[in-house]
Amino acid sequence: MPDDRFKLEMKVRDYELDAQGVVNNAVYLNYLEHCRHEFLLSRGIDFNRFTNDRVFLVVVRSELDYKAPLRGGDSFWIGLDLERISPLRFAFLQDIHRRDDGRLVLAARTIGTAINEKGRPFLPPALEALLAPGAKTVQTAVK
Amino acid sequence: MPDDRFKLEMKVRDYELDAQGVVNNAVYLNYLEHCRHEFLLSRGIDFNRFTNDRVFLVVVRSELDYKAPLRGGDSFWIGLDLERISPLRFAFLQDIHRRDDGRLVLAARTIGTAINEKGRPFLPPALEALLAPGAKTVQTAVK
Amino acid sequence: MPDDRFKLEMKVRDYELDAQGVVNNAVYLNYLEHCRHEFLLSRGIDFNRFTNDRVFLVVVRSELDYKAPLRGGDSFWIGLDLERISPLRFAFLQDIHRRDDGRLVLAARTIGTAINEKGRPFLPPALEALLAPGAKTVQTAVK
Amino acid sequence: MPDDRFKLEMKVRDYELDAQGVVNNAVYLNYLEHCRHEFLLSRGIDFNRFTNDRVFLVVVRSELDYKAPLRGGDSFWIGLDLERISPLRFAFLQDIHRRDDGRLVLAARTIGTAINEKGRPFLPPALEALLAPGAKTVQTAVK
Repeated sequence: MPDDRFKLEMKVRDYELDAQGVVNNAVYLNYLEHCRHEFLLSRGIDFNRFTNDRVFLVVVRSELDYKAPLRGGDSFWIGLDLERISPLRFAFLQDIHRRDDGRLVLAARTIGTAINEKGRPFLPPALEALLAPGAKTVQTAVK
Repeated sequence: MPDDRFKLEMKVRDYELDAQGVVNNAVYLNYLEHCRHEFLLSRGIDFNRFTNDRVFLVVVRSELDYKAPLRGGDSFWIGLDLERISPLRFAFLQDIHRRDDGRLVLAARTIGTAINEKGRPFLPPALEALLAPGAKTVQTAVK
Repeated sequence: MPDDRFKLEMKVRDYELDAQGVVNNAVYLNYLEHCRHEFLLSRGIDFNRFTNDRVFLVVVRSELDYKAPLRGGDSFWIGLDLERISPLRFAFLQDIHRRDDGRLVLAARTIGTAINEKGRPFLPPALEALLAPGAKTVQTAVK
Repeated sequence: MPDDRFKLEMKVRDYELDAQGVVNNAVYLNYLEHCRHEFLLSRGIDFNRFTNDRVFLVVVRSELDYKAPLRGGDSFWIGLDLERISPLRFAFLQDIHRRDDGRLVLAARTIGTAINEKGRPFLPPALEALLAPGAKTVQTAVK
């Protein structure tokens, strides 16, 4: 079965480590955000152009399960699936895997929406198209 | 009714803002971690001494509900409650409130444990004492 | 002799430490920026309002001398002086001192200017007033 | 003339932008550090192994000239040269260029040394070998 999930390869940078010698918890949100924006870009949605146009993609909930640490020098990849969960909300399912041994490092679920300049939720057409049934990415359970 | 929850006052720093002009999602994990460490310190537990002694306090799960943004110049406070949820796990319930209008900005639940140098979960005595029934902080639902 | 320099008290947050167990080099630029913005605010200049009005205060050069490390739990203070160095440029002289022993941790010189929406240097009136001879802060050599 | 400088390709991540919509000043120190560590690794020197062995590579001075901003979506490359400047000190000359138009974004000079567990400067053999005349990287003025 072909695996056509969106994947992003990354590598730990040493400034992301904390005094325990592991990637600090908060840094995973940086990784996950970067991966989501790269995914959107690959689908023709430029996060920064949205921001300039006063369309704000926002996170309303994050769930993160930390399974194993990443350390200095580690390479890893992030897999991503996107699904619509309500008329105005969507969920990114992302999982981070250490490249060396394939070990699951983190599983995350990030619920987002888009709001306009007045703070009202709405989905811009490009996002609506991305979330339409035919355009869906393959969905995989992350837990 | 007296409110004896642990609280920490903080202020947004401008480098914590992203291109949307709001505090970036990941930064809230920095705030929450800092608040947990200050709380522990107020109870006689020094996170860095633990780390030097090869006792690692680690997060195993985070849940974050983003309710409202923080912007440049905003002051805020974080409330914290701690409860034991299993023999080796404990949960921090934290909520962030904007100082100006008291609005709830974020509610978070962070599940942690401690591991020794070999990666095995165990609770050091100081933490065991903190989690003992009589030592518990007042618990408040955050949602 | 009274010392009327602008000073800001801060405390290391554990997520700012790197794997060496000290505050990472880059974090000092965060500290310095936060101190500059707090200083400006104390003089009636709101960095974020400037940004919203499309007036961009920018750094053109930084010089940093790292003298001693900061570690987890350390409190410190930053002293700040401001001087005009040319019609359109000004320099912040900042030095960071560990609170416990007063030791000099870092001395920095940051040269800035302001640019408008088209990227042209210009000084907004509030900044011009702040830099006028009578309004100058006491200047102290940092090295 | 062949150009055998060490170069690293990178891309701006959106969480690195601040409210002005450009990469925040402090983030450049993250980029520069990552590039130095990748360079060292390419020469057989593992920064994290040094740290584990209680050999600390430290920065004693940084000079940064900010020439142009990086924005969301920008790719860039960093060039690096290393030279010994005294028996116990070395300087990294690094310059950041925007990939699209080749424009110089930042030029930096970072002076470093190594210290042992007791805080005394000393150069470990691997670093001594790297800094030996024959092993030098091509040196290029960055200004």
